[in-house]
Amino acid sequence: MPTQPTSIAFVGLGAMGAPMAENLVKRQFRVTGFDMRASAREALVAAGGHAADSAKAAAEGAEVLVLMVVNAAQARSVLFESQAMDALAPGALVILMATCPPGEVEAIAAEVARSGRHLIDAPVSGGVNGARGATLTIMVGAPQDRFDQARPVLDALGDKVFHVGQKPGQGATVKTVNQLLCGVHIAVAAEALSLAEKAGIDGKLLFEIMGGSAASSWMLRDRGPRMHEPDPPVASAVDIFVKDLGIVLDAGRAAKTALPLAAAAHQMFLASSGLGHGGRDDSQVVRAYRALNAKPANDA
Amino acid sequence: MPTQPTSIAFVGLGAMGAPMAENLVKRQFRVTGFDMRASAREALVAAGGHAADSAKAAAEGAEVLVLMVVNAAQARSVLFESQAMDALAPGALVILMATCPPGEVEAIAAEVARSGRHLIDAPVSGGVNGARGATLTIMVGAPQDRFDQARPVLDALGDKVFHVGQKPGQGATVKTVNQLLCGVHIAVAAEALSLAEKAGIDGKLLFEIMGGSAASSWMLRDRGPRMHEPDPPVASAVDIFVKDLGIVLDAGRAAKTALPLAAAAHQMFLASSGLGHGGRDDSQVVRAYRALNAKPANDA
Repeated sequence: MPTQPTSIAFVGLGAMGAPMAENLVKRQFRVTGFDMRASAREALVAAGGHAADSAKAAAEGAEVLVLMVVNAAQARSVLFESQAMDALAPGALVILMATCPPGEVEAIAAEVARSGRHLIDAPVSGGVNGARGATLTIMVGAPQDRFDQARPVLDALGDKVFHVGQKPGQGATVKTVNQLLCGVHIAVAAEALSLAEKAGIDGKLLFEIMGGSAASSWMLRDRGPRMHEPDPPVASAVDIFVKDLGIVLDAGRAAKTALPLAAAAHQMFLASSGLGHGGRDDSQVVRAYRALNAKPANDA
Repeated sequence: MPTQPTSIAFVGLGAMGAPMAENLVKRQFRVTGFDMRASAREALVAAGGHAADSAKAAAEGAEVLVLMVVNAAQARSVLFESQAMDALAPGALVILMATCPPGEVEAIAAEVARSGRHLIDAPVSGGVNGARGATLTIMVGAPQDRFDQARPVLDALGDKVFHVGQKPGQGATVKTVNQLLCGVHIAVAAEALSLAEKAGIDGKLLFEIMGGSAASSWMLRDRGPRMHEPDPPVASAVDIFVKDLGIVLDAGRAAKTALPLAAAAHQMFLASSGLGHGGRDDSQVVRAYRALNAKPANDA
């Protein structure tokens, strides 16, 4: 007799969450999703999953709850205010995959533990493409036995699953460091472009050269070409880095650690958002540099 | 009857210059080298080249002069004070491959042009490994006909030869932008490591994860592992980035262009040099971060 498939509640069916939930369906898990948007719930049902009308209803009796919400406040709201946690099966796993401050993750883990459930701190990187292709990088902070238990679910979502520490919060720390690097790499590509444009160098040729040299970064190759477009499709928004570099700097404050490059990069994302571009693709941090370093208008 | 091989004078047989001169010898050019150090001259002769006792003697009648010296001041000294330029054949090419400020390159090009020779602005990236393997990236600013003329020499030294503009100085600008990216990428890898170490994350695992994620850069993968070594072999020294990020910021000043990330990264290389590590491998910029973000000593 076949064993019953693991029942998974999935909350947060956004640009990342929707394809992740669908990847779980494809791996034969029984997935019940919830999102505020009816269209997102309907899309999951069309893909072979189930939908519920509330986070609590999705969590009812589930052995695993995956949280792919926007931030720690939403995770708390789902778990504690919407009472999704108490609806879960006893001993269930709560897999928190949103980017949250490490200190917040520790605090949430403690509350989850008090209810007899277990928090798996498992933030991801790799963006929408990684979510779609199940090629996410997943950075897990959890005791070994819980990590082993969560592994089949994690393996359905990513192909680079790292167990970075035994404590919830350590996954979030690694993700925080990841965002530090990503944010600075995007901003510095924009800074480089800004200097080259001022000197009359063709920006596309510049990035072609830099992308094949020791000056290359994953972000330069990915975001660089979109810096030449006036309004590229949004893979990830400027405001995501306003938030994530904010988390980086908060983690630095909490640990009393000076992070001069992250701080400078955060200013450029903030300025870009303040100029009205927070909802645009994060490559558009270049707009803050162009505002700073524009050539003066000629009288013509 | 076979044509006479092009005669090339090569000044500056250091860590980069020596293997570059040898690559020209391998391609059957007639190479006469000069360096202040007798051992460097002897090594070139052992590799099949020729040596001269002065820059002027090396340049005597040569059709091409390659300058792989430390900076613009040395290039001026070789060309004008040592009178190497006047010793060259009429119409010879001066290929300036050192990293120099774009404004300096323009000024040197003008003086070279007045003597009836032609400056090829051709800085490189790719480091000692690129110099050895003839896989350098070469960024050339020169009129099309001079670029075509220099091409066989450039192709013997690098496999990524880009013609970035018609004016000497534009190659230097692209190299400046390259160094901006490289310097910031090294410093931010050290900054990321510093935050992770403070949180008790294993630095080697961290870089393994980051090296395979969207947070990766060429420099993180190359310099990252050396940040875990107490005193790794010097591929390129901290003081090279003190100089090169200085050139970046000078170029920014000249063009009235704000470069907040480059400025912050320069401070970290400066501090590392000021702490006595200027001669160490540039990965050791991490020592400035460790000085900033050390864990307080425990009473033990």
